[in-house]
Amino acid sequence: MKFVRYGKAGAEKPGLIGPDGKIRDLSGHVADLSGAVLTTSSLQELGKLPDLPTVKGNPRLGPCVAGTGKFICIGLNYSDHAEETGATVPPEPIAFMKATSAIVGPNDDVLIPRDSQKTDWEVELGIVIGKKAKYVPEAEALDYVAGWCVCHDVSERAFQTERSGQWTKGKSCDTFGPTGPWLVTKDEIKDVLSLKMWLSVNGQTMQDGTTATMVFKPAFLVSYLSQFMTLHPGDIISTGTPPGVGMGMKPPRFLKDGDVVELGIEGLGQQKQTFRQDA
Amino acid sequence: MKFVRYGKAGAEKPGLIGPDGKIRDLSGHVADLSGAVLTTSSLQELGKLPDLPTVKGNPRLGPCVAGTGKFICIGLNYSDHAEETGATVPPEPIAFMKATSAIVGPNDDVLIPRDSQKTDWEVELGIVIGKKAKYVPEAEALDYVAGWCVCHDVSERAFQTERSGQWTKGKSCDTFGPTGPWLVTKDEIKDVLSLKMWLSVNGQTMQDGTTATMVFKPAFLVSYLSQFMTLHPGDIISTGTPPGVGMGMKPPRFLKDGDVVELGIEGLGQQKQTFRQDA
Repeated sequence: MKFVRYGKAGAEKPGLIGPDGKIRDLSGHVADLSGAVLTTSSLQELGKLPDLPTVKGNPRLGPCVAGTGKFICIGLNYSDHAEETGATVPPEPIAFMKATSAIVGPNDDVLIPRDSQKTDWEVELGIVIGKKAKYVPEAEALDYVAGWCVCHDVSERAFQTERSGQWTKGKSCDTFGPTGPWLVTKDEIKDVLSLKMWLSVNGQTMQDGTTATMVFKPAFLVSYLSQFMTLHPGDIISTGTPPGVGMGMKPPRFLKDGDVVELGIEGLGQQKQTFRQDA
Repeated sequence: MKFVRYGKAGAEKPGLIGPDGKIRDLSGHVADLSGAVLTTSSLQELGKLPDLPTVKGNPRLGPCVAGTGKFICIGLNYSDHAEETGATVPPEPIAFMKATSAIVGPNDDVLIPRDSQKTDWEVELGIVIGKKAKYVPEAEALDYVAGWCVCHDVSERAFQTERSGQWTKGKSCDTFGPTGPWLVTKDEIKDVLSLKMWLSVNGQTMQDGTTATMVFKPAFLVSYLSQFMTLHPGDIISTGTPPGVGMGMKPPRFLKDGDVVELGIEGLGQQKQTFRQDA
């Protein structure tokens, strides 16, 4: 199934995508797509509900999951992307946090922060945690996953690397975490490690990769992170980006007011954002 | 005023400390100490309520604030602490995130994670945000602060620095964020930049500092961080630790099962944790 959250920002309702591609309203059955609703059995039950009302019109889509307490990102997790940034693949996953206050819907405007010079793009596969995971072995790790989504790990490179240590300042700006359109359950995706992923700026393809070149893979990442901290339902792990980011171009290219970024992952849907200079 | 949250973990009630040092129950007036309750005017109103019931017994204290979306920590923010770690004070604040899932009450047990060899202590002054702050000038920054609290920025040094980039892995372990006992409003503290701060392990003083040697100060930090991301009510900024951490000792000393850590800041109360090896 493909789950969505739709409606005004901060007042989204839960839904799912019907066979005709239209949204079905789940708000009569669950308050939101968060917490205990995200277990595989709960999601399966929701998918079987008969006679769900079809949502009229074409509402805004919100972030595809609610109650995200941690938005953990993995750095340099595609060998060819590491190369373009001048770094090498690390021996263990690099993890950093993106502020959850950065999360927005998949097609919301993204704000270029005041004083930003180097706002950049990164299409990523997101893992949505479905149940509490602590010290989980790799072989069982996917049991703790609700499903997958597209994440845009928008990044300000100067804030990230030129403003004194630690990447979080360049990753946590408001609107830097478009998430969705859908939470796609695991059964919908035959092989999460062979999905095409792509990103364009004003129609020009910039990233054209595949999850096949991911270094540390989802089951390993869930297990690995759960050795350090408990993962909770709704937590998102964004698994790194393939080559083609702006900072890797010669000369580097960054986003400016009015630029339109479109990105997607095979089977997981696509996003489209207009970038706007924040006042 | 001094605000507290008391009761079982996950079901804390809001309260304040009366003139006799006993807890008064605020649960008939506010659901929790979070969101809009944290504005200075709202906290002042709560402080004026007559005839609040006295809470009987000696309940557990929870984290002193609820609804924390971001737990931002500042690194190397005391010149003498930077020196003991072999680092220099950075030109701008180093910011990193501690997972909010690490937050516990001030006297709860702290779990030493599986495979930890280097669990260390850090007493810190916490800033609690009282209202939404974005692009705030330094001169107005304290208007956005609800008050102050003691934070224990428990840190696993090997996870932090020896396990591939970015500190968050060593800072975000479950129970690594004891917070409280109190949220102390600004009017209670004459000069937040001249408070003694201390920490002992099994009764032996390890940290004996003062907020006077803080490099980047609270008003600057709130303003600075608000240039990168919106700060929301309940967000906590932990402002760094003075000298005396275990990794700075010769030889280094780290915490083990059964160790008791006590820490406090003048006017903000104290914490006491027993460290337990996680199974």
